Amino acid sequence: MKDDELYFWNGPLPETQAPAPGPVPEPWDQTTVVGKPVIRIDAYDRVSGSAQYPSDVRLADMLHAAVLSCPHAHAMVRKVDTSAAEKMPGVRAILKDGDVGTNVPWFAGRGGFSSRLFDPHCRYEGDEVAVVAADTIYQAWDAVRAIKVDYEVLPQVTSVADALKPGAPAVRDGGNAIPPGKPYVRGNVEAGFASADVVIEHTFTTPCELQNAMELHGCVAKWDGPRLTIWESTQGVFGVQTGVARALNIPLANIRVIGHYMGGGFGAKLSAGKYSVMAPLLARKTGRPVRLFLSREQVCLGMGNRPANTITLKAGVKKDGTLVALQSKAVGSGGAYSEGGTGGVDFVIRELYACPNVHCENANVFTHAGPERPFRAPGHPQGAWALEIMLDALAAKIGMDPVALRFKNVTLVSQTRTGNPSYTSTGFADCLTKGAEAFGWAAARARKPAPSHVRRGVGVAGGIWQGGGGSPPSTAIVKLFADGSANLNMGASDIGCGTKTWGAQIVAEELGVPMDRISVEHADTGTTQFATPSGGSKTVPTESPAIRSAALEVKQQLYAMAAEQLKLPATDLELRGSEVVSKSDATKKVALGQIQAFGRRGLLVGIGYRVPNPPGSVVNPFGVQFAEVEVNTKTGEIKVLRFLAAHDSGRVLNPKMFQNQLIGGITMGIGFGLTEDRVMDDRQLGKLLTVNLHDYKLPTALDAPADKTMVIVDPQDRAFSNTGAKGVGEPATIPTAPAIANAVFHATGLRLTDAPMSPARVLTAIAGQKPAPAGQKGRE
Amino acid sequence: MKDDELYFWNGPLPETQAPAPGPVPEPWDQTTVVGKPVIRIDAYDRVSGSAQYPSDVRLADMLHAAVLSCPHAHAMVRKVDTSAAEKMPGVRAILKDGDVGTNVPWFAGRGGFSSRLFDPHCRYEGDEVAVVAADTIYQAWDAVRAIKVDYEVLPQVTSVADALKPGAPAVRDGGNAIPPGKPYVRGNVEAGFASADVVIEHTFTTPCELQNAMELHGCVAKWDGPRLTIWESTQGVFGVQTGVARALNIPLANIRVIGHYMGGGFGAKLSAGKYSVMAPLLARKTGRPVRLFLSREQVCLGMGNRPANTITLKAGVKKDGTLVALQSKAVGSGGAYSEGGTGGVDFVIRELYACPNVHCENANVFTHAGPERPFRAPGHPQGAWALEIMLDALAAKIGMDPVALRFKNVTLVSQTRTGNPSYTSTGFADCLTKGAEAFGWAAARARKPAPSHVRRGVGVAGGIWQGGGGSPPSTAIVKLFADGSANLNMGASDIGCGTKTWGAQIVAEELGVPMDRISVEHADTGTTQFATPSGGSKTVPTESPAIRSAALEVKQQLYAMAAEQLKLPATDLELRGSEVVSKSDATKKVALGQIQAFGRRGLLVGIGYRVPNPPGSVVNPFGVQFAEVEVNTKTGEIKVLRFLAAHDSGRVLNPKMFQNQLIGGITMGIGFGLTEDRVMDDRQLGKLLTVNLHDYKLPTALDAPADKTMVIVDPQDRAFSNTGAKGVGEPATIPTAPAIANAVFHATGLRLTDAPMSPARVLTAIAGQKPAPAGQKGRE
Repeated sequence: MKDDELYFWNGPLPETQAPAPGPVPEPWDQTTVVGKPVIRIDAYDRVSGSAQYPSDVRLADMLHAAVLSCPHAHAMVRKVDTSAAEKMPGVRAILKDGDVGTNVPWFAGRGGFSSRLFDPHCRYEGDEVAVVAADTIYQAWDAVRAIKVDYEVLPQVTSVADALKPGAPAVRDGGNAIPPGKPYVRGNVEAGFASADVVIEHTFTTPCELQNAMELHGCVAKWDGPRLTIWESTQGVFGVQTGVARALNIPLANIRVIGHYMGGGFGAKLSAGKYSVMAPLLARKTGRPVRLFLSREQVCLGMGNRPANTITLKAGVKKDGTLVALQSKAVGSGGAYSEGGTGGVDFVIRELYACPNVHCENANVFTHAGPERPFRAPGHPQGAWALEIMLDALAAKIGMDPVALRFKNVTLVSQTRTGNPSYTSTGFADCLTKGAEAFGWAAARARKPAPSHVRRGVGVAGGIWQGGGGSPPSTAIVKLFADGSANLNMGASDIGCGTKTWGAQIVAEELGVPMDRISVEHADTGTTQFATPSGGSKTVPTESPAIRSAALEVKQQLYAMAAEQLKLPATDLELRGSEVVSKSDATKKVALGQIQAFGRRGLLVGIGYRVPNPPGSVVNPFGVQFAEVEVNTKTGEIKVLRFLAAHDSGRVLNPKMFQNQLIGGITMGIGFGLTEDRVMDDRQLGKLLTVNLHDYKLPTALDAPADKTMVIVDPQDRAFSNTGAKGVGEPATIPTAPAIANAVFHATGLRLTDAPMSPARVLTAIAGQKPAPAGQKGRE
Repeated sequence: MKDDELYFWNGPLPETQAPAPGPVPEPWDQTTVVGKPVIRIDAYDRVSGSAQYPSDVRLADMLHAAVLSCPHAHAMVRKVDTSAAEKMPGVRAILKDGDVGTNVPWFAGRGGFSSRLFDPHCRYEGDEVAVVAADTIYQAWDAVRAIKVDYEVLPQVTSVADALKPGAPAVRDGGNAIPPGKPYVRGNVEAGFASADVVIEHTFTTPCELQNAMELHGCVAKWDGPRLTIWESTQGVFGVQTGVARALNIPLANIRVIGHYMGGGFGAKLSAGKYSVMAPLLARKTGRPVRLFLSREQVCLGMGNRPANTITLKAGVKKDGTLVALQSKAVGSGGAYSEGGTGGVDFVIRELYACPNVHCENANVFTHAGPERPFRAPGHPQGAWALEIMLDALAAKIGMDPVALRFKNVTLVSQTRTGNPSYTSTGFADCLTKGAEAFGWAAARARKPAPSHVRRGVGVAGGIWQGGGGSPPSTAIVKLFADGSANLNMGASDIGCGTKTWGAQIVAEELGVPMDRISVEHADTGTTQFATPSGGSKTVPTESPAIRSAALEVKQQLYAMAAEQLKLPATDLELRGSEVVSKSDATKKVALGQIQAFGRRGLLVGIGYRVPNPPGSVVNPFGVQFAEVEVNTKTGEIKVLRFLAAHDSGRVLNPKMFQNQLIGGITMGIGFGLTEDRVMDDRQLGKLLTVNLHDYKLPTALDAPADKTMVIVDPQDRAFSNTGAKGVGEPATIPTAPAIANAVFHATGLRLTDAPMSPARVLTAIAGQKPAPAGQKGRE
């Protein structure tokens, strides 16, 4: 897979066919709005409850729909008897396989597999069997329960090991192993290991995490003649539009997908769901709008997970800390369908540190379980878990400080890309040194623990994200009204990161419009410009330059009009507040409201495109995180006391929202490291036990460290785009768990390598070995 | 007043400051979609009831509001006691003068006068006194009736004659006469009349017509923090946005006005109403959305009328038919406020025919009655009523055929504009000759009537409309999706004329996209581009060139991308259906869906502007209408049997919708000529009697002539814009009534000059003079 391609719509735009870059921006060295901790423009709406999320939409005559899910991990549907359900009060329509409109080839992600809308061959507990629309949601669920299904229950396979055995029940016709990509090879690992002073090999495991966004998956669909409107909780309205257009075979222009608010998406809402097709079909059948949101249980069962991975990593290092060889073999399980989230496991391993000899293999295996989907930095937390714990172990083995070991192996050029081009910015070294300084690393590391069953320790881990540099396509429009207020029109969804706010900040910065005079229209395929889904930490680096270009184009129009009125050359003009002023003679000026041609135009429209990054540029965000933990060796509980995140994400558009992203990512990383785990039944029936937020342990605000510090490393190399901003959403979560694991080792000498580090696992480890004093070498 | 300025937003854009014209259009000689009788793209929505008009909007927790109107023609509000109303069930808020937010200077149209939101000085029956918001509309009206108002009733003046008397009650501080403009003078009328062979002078009167659009006036308002959304039944969302922004002092960008559908507007919905401000104030006070629509009675009382006019016209003609002098003096009444509809009375008189000596005076007078507003061709039907009956009388006097007399005086150059520039197209002569031929004028005119009390006759009248040529500003955006479907984004409202449909036709024509693959986003200040209100018959000539420019820009982008892929120059390419094909070698081609760069861009965006008409161009639409009527001399009833409309409106974008416009305009002209009349009480208390659709006689479908013919005269001179389309909305209604009056004369010899020609008036005229045989000279 090409780097940075993960979330692209249809791949990046070739440079030669890109739109013209538009007006060349002035340097943006001094800013007054961008880079400031502006509060969100929709803060009131979100806090007051007036923000209307897709699941809040209520339309006149709207029906409510509920889905019947298969209760078996593997079964063939022989017959669906809806006769009793159809007669129940309020029931308006039932759809099952074979009904009109259900025979749609369904594009189930990037795995190349497809199924029908209601595939009679159910491959996991939760596969869709039928859907009911009724006057109330209670009537719909009652009817779902009244549908009689004759299943032929088939043997299931739920573990990777079993799935690979000869004669194992087949999840897919092509065999249970997802065809692996070619191994990544650099240098000669055998020679590398031979030259190493220390070699460690270990197998790490990571949990299968369920995404569990706050808002459930679903949509409301309404037809107006041939035109369909869908309000959907999605990361990308244009992706939903495309998916539904393909499924229903109607023109893109006739599908309006609106996603003004959405209650969280971490990769599982990048494209249309089957519900996005069922709701329109039900609405067409009944002639009424239909609301279809899945239950929490159905979201846990089928709406995406981070695949569990088993990573065997072998690393060789010289006594001076020089990494000489890395070899990894990762096996994950994508469940029953491959929906785009199985890659990326080895990226951190092969790219983060200078290392001449690298060999990486990734494999994925089908099982009868809910399908994976891209989940906040797909593969990266898994790879970082292995690599960054390994580095801690290597440091311990050669007696080197873990920060120093990482610093020793910092690279200024890409390790993976052909020709080893330089990064546009390389803040990783600064993240290590400035982070360590701000954290008080040296002192904390040297501190002797109190003689107690509660042990404290500190750990560090680094990370890099495969994407985060942005690319075309993106189009944005900025409108300036005659009273100097402005509207930003862009296709991108705000998945909770503050997209609308930093977009407005860029307009405010460039046009001198106060924030409270800027409105934003976004995420609506009927009214906005094109954007790829918000994911891959690419929303900031992709959209922000297009927005700035659009604002600049408006400014150029303004200058031309003012120049004519003032009888001055446009090049002599600049915008100061709400006035256009002559640079050479400040007495010559005109207020925006006094530019006659502007008033007569009604409003100015500027269009901006994301142009490609310069040829050969390598743009990646970096981060280093430091954790201080407390391990209770009697209960096995691990508590994160203190956390510091030092990140290079280029220019930070809004430090308040940047910090929020970091806190969210770190909290999610704490879940990966300490609590989250999809648990299937222990009889291997393929039944999911963690189907609610009581049993599935998402970290809450109380699990986040109270003491959080953020260090922004801005290398000031912003040449790659006109904003120089990189992404942070995914980088925020990549190094978290290994930093905690390394702190646990520092605190206890316990080398835990299976995530999550649950109390049970901690106690098991303690039972197997008396805890060594903190700071000493533990079990490898 | 400058010509064509009537409905401009802030005046036309000077040519030098206009946006660049964009790609030069190819000739549009052969069309496949434009010019065809395509059915409306929203026909299903309108007919099925699924179209959501502003008055259909229902929001969660929405309150309903009702306005308390002053029952007196002239009164001072001493005290408003809301104490009882406030305690009534469901009442959530009451606003009256003096409450927070009501002290807004209100821009009441172009008359230069303003009043408060609830002006304590009530100047007509219907002036707003208070407004109530309650849980249901019934509760709101109950509360309105429970408000106790202490009025100081003042003397009123309700007729023009009384208002001009010394010591008459003052409607406004500045006196009751609206300051008249300078008389229009050309040549020397005294000399002209001296040179004439025949001179006739007569005083004509016209009715005060109530606009009575099908949908009542009102809006729904909702706040999201500082942002306000208004769904309003309006002809122009940007005008409402500006009015509300001024009244509430909030940025334009924070006001989103949506008017996707609207149930009719003939000039009375060009800008914000007081309801547009009351609803947001109530919504802000209650924290809930508020729906405020006036009652039919309130619409009749205060929401605009066509001023009644008394026009004394003196005309001189030579025996050969040459017009030598025209002198007019018009007095109208704009009611209590002047809201922009009192002009235009003399335009037809001074512009339609070649005449060297012209003198025109217009005056308007305030009375204590509902205010006038622009109403479908303001002033023009009144002026045409006088002029075109006068021409019929002159023709009779000199024994010349009325069509021949008009033909004799056709002008190819503007009579009024400085330097007498040529019209860009002058279809008036063709309208006369082709219309007469198609109508069978000569035969019908010569036909001897049956000896019966039911008399038949035919008449003709011509017209010109002051506007209809279009101008900047307008901005349109066309988006082309990767599957070749398209979206048109424009600010213009579709007030029932089919704006969305012909807009889509232009996109279909230019891009080869089938009509059913084009969607339209329009009339939304939050999501669309700028447009002036839909009025003045300027929507087609103003918006259509901008739309074509936007589509052309998309096509240029497409050619550039295809050229790169096909390795051909872009100039060698053309769009054929859904393929881009080489002009020189038709085997070289690529389907839209196969243009890789297009697919990767997601969608193409083209922006188009309306550029000014060429300097010196004079663009006016013309029309000639022929009527055959039946007059029952026993009952006084006039029935229009047959009607032919021959119009030059340049290129006709859709003949079906063009015909609809003509039928609507003719039907409205029948109302002007035969049935419509605002009736006040005969004690001159200023009380309106015709406050519903039973008492106010709007013509219905049964009153429209069953036999209708349309002749499109297209002079093919389309150089003034890239579509060459002129307006027809107002031209359609200008000559209708005098054509009927002239037919009545032909049928009966009765020269009726007071509109409407009600049965009572017909019988009164008959009582005064035995009807002469049809076709003979009647009473002058």
